[in-house]
Amino acid sequence: MVVSVTGTAPAWDAAMEAELLRRIDGKTKPVGSLGAVETIAAAVARTRRSLTPRLEACDLTIFAADHGIAREGVSAYPQAVTRQMVLNFLAGGAAANVMSRALGVGFRVVDAGIAGEPIDHPALISRRIGPGTRSFLDGPAMTVAELDAALDAGRALGADGVADAVAFGEMGIGNTSAAALVAHKLTGTPLADLVGRGTGLADAGLERKRVTLEGAAARTAPVLDPRAALAEYGGFEVAMMAGAMLGGAAAGRVVLVDGFIAAVAALAAVAIDPAARGPMIFAHRSAERGHGAVLASLAAEPILDLGLRLGEGTGALLAWPIVKASAAMLSEMSSFETAGVSGPA
Amino acid sequence: MVVSVTGTAPAWDAAMEAELLRRIDGKTKPVGSLGAVETIAAAVARTRRSLTPRLEACDLTIFAADHGIAREGVSAYPQAVTRQMVLNFLAGGAAANVMSRALGVGFRVVDAGIAGEPIDHPALISRRIGPGTRSFLDGPAMTVAELDAALDAGRALGADGVADAVAFGEMGIGNTSAAALVAHKLTGTPLADLVGRGTGLADAGLERKRVTLEGAAARTAPVLDPRAALAEYGGFEVAMMAGAMLGGAAAGRVVLVDGFIAAVAALAAVAIDPAARGPMIFAHRSAERGHGAVLASLAAEPILDLGLRLGEGTGALLAWPIVKASAAMLSEMSSFETAGVSGPA
Repeated sequence: MVVSVTGTAPAWDAAMEAELLRRIDGKTKPVGSLGAVETIAAAVARTRRSLTPRLEACDLTIFAADHGIAREGVSAYPQAVTRQMVLNFLAGGAAANVMSRALGVGFRVVDAGIAGEPIDHPALISRRIGPGTRSFLDGPAMTVAELDAALDAGRALGADGVADAVAFGEMGIGNTSAAALVAHKLTGTPLADLVGRGTGLADAGLERKRVTLEGAAARTAPVLDPRAALAEYGGFEVAMMAGAMLGGAAAGRVVLVDGFIAAVAALAAVAIDPAARGPMIFAHRSAERGHGAVLASLAAEPILDLGLRLGEGTGALLAWPIVKASAAMLSEMSSFETAGVSGPA
Repeated sequence: MVVSVTGTAPAWDAAMEAELLRRIDGKTKPVGSLGAVETIAAAVARTRRSLTPRLEACDLTIFAADHGIAREGVSAYPQAVTRQMVLNFLAGGAAANVMSRALGVGFRVVDAGIAGEPIDHPALISRRIGPGTRSFLDGPAMTVAELDAALDAGRALGADGVADAVAFGEMGIGNTSAAALVAHKLTGTPLADLVGRGTGLADAGLERKRVTLEGAAARTAPVLDPRAALAEYGGFEVAMMAGAMLGGAAAGRVVLVDGFIAAVAALAAVAIDPAARGPMIFAHRSAERGHGAVLASLAAEPILDLGLRLGEGTGALLAWPIVKASAAMLSEMSSFETAGVSGPA
């Protein structure tokens, strides 16, 4: 049964769910012996509303933007690295480029608001909200109008193209600070449990970052709604990624969620529209401190645990072949009945 | 520097090792931020003796054989399933077929000693040592001549073809029993820690399996050398896989080690020739009880932990894209120097 996910897609009902589980258990393998592969396959089936889902193509979109907070010494790297890394993406030399090529994933990069003059390059998708956010130490990182523009641009980018699955990455010096505060205001998790070393702060830098962010957190109410949290503390790339997840999910696509920043974007997206949670598959457990708490808030069990903490969508890229193979398991594997294989004695 | 691994391959010396680590740390990413990907890339470089290793092609070979011990009720499935599953492989409907296709891995299946008449099929590679092993309850599973024939056939299969990486899978009702005893005799790990549910034994069946295997273990000295352990308790597919790992490693290939049975074959291979350890990359941590102890004996940190317990090489298949992408990271990613990206402030 191949079902279009647009137009005439049927509702996923109890009968479809029962048939899904019956098919997975009827494949020529001991019941449950493919572990997480079975769980992933079921999630893909529900998202694609098909008992024979096909995942042929995956696209990665990287959102890049700068953060006013980066000028407060919260990162091990200077702000200029955001722009330099975007040029590296455009030249094809970054980890995300290399892995995309190795794994057959489409690649594109979006300027969501890089500091300085716009970069003039034919392959760069410009959706600049501004030349970086303002520092959130004394006021909101962005206006509500800027937030809405970022969410809307993201929704459109998540919904366009023809890929069955979409992965999102980010680049933005300072964005673990932004993400920690957004997660703190959305979940109430203590900030100390969400603030990590980012690109590699040593102990003193980590303590300075934590103190700086505690100060910024004190500026607003303990808990904020998702739009307020994003406007007060978010980044243009974080907000645009949240929009893209909403757009991808609404279009019936599998949404591969990368690491800490992406998980915070997912948290905001789900807070805006809980229906976005179903299509999300969480790629990996990052080494960045706050990721575990955010995953727990989303009741997410990631596929990989490789000690990654790079971002750029690299974890999502590495998980993609497993998601693709899991869908193929459901769609193509024979059953005990059809293959003439005996069941347990 | 692309170096052929045959003929004129240079020795891997301290200067090569230092240059390898310098290159990985010089890539445009925070030091260490690609976690296990960096470790895997380094292992591939050492095996391929190249600082720009290419992993383009991977082949999976599944070894199938039957076990006399299967008649003692140590498995949840009847012995006939080995043959039925080989027919399923040949028809393209098993999990390993589906995943091989989805991930672009070559697939072949070898009759190492399936019970009954030989299967007549053009795609089946026949290396039959016999119609299954004898039960190891009262005597050796195979003769020394049979063991040598299995090891030799495996060595040749591991060395032929042109794949950069080789993965091995197995099918053989009863082979978790054989593998548990081989591991017990090679490592001294208590048998109770190595005997698991296999294809899905319930508690009573597990206890019966353990008691049966304790009896078989008492027949020989507590510790055996690898050839004796394989001859006394092994299976034709386990011995042939050990040979294939030796052949693949000697040919300078990356050897992807699947789950519990494959790890025991790896243990035997490394006991026969310690040089075989370097080229091995361990794909996943199986849900089968004994796998953790065997991995620890090999000082192996597997890539995936997905709760798999199917065999057939499925874990190795799912890990392959990550290994491929890790090698590409080393070979293709730009450095801070060449990309003009700033380092830490």
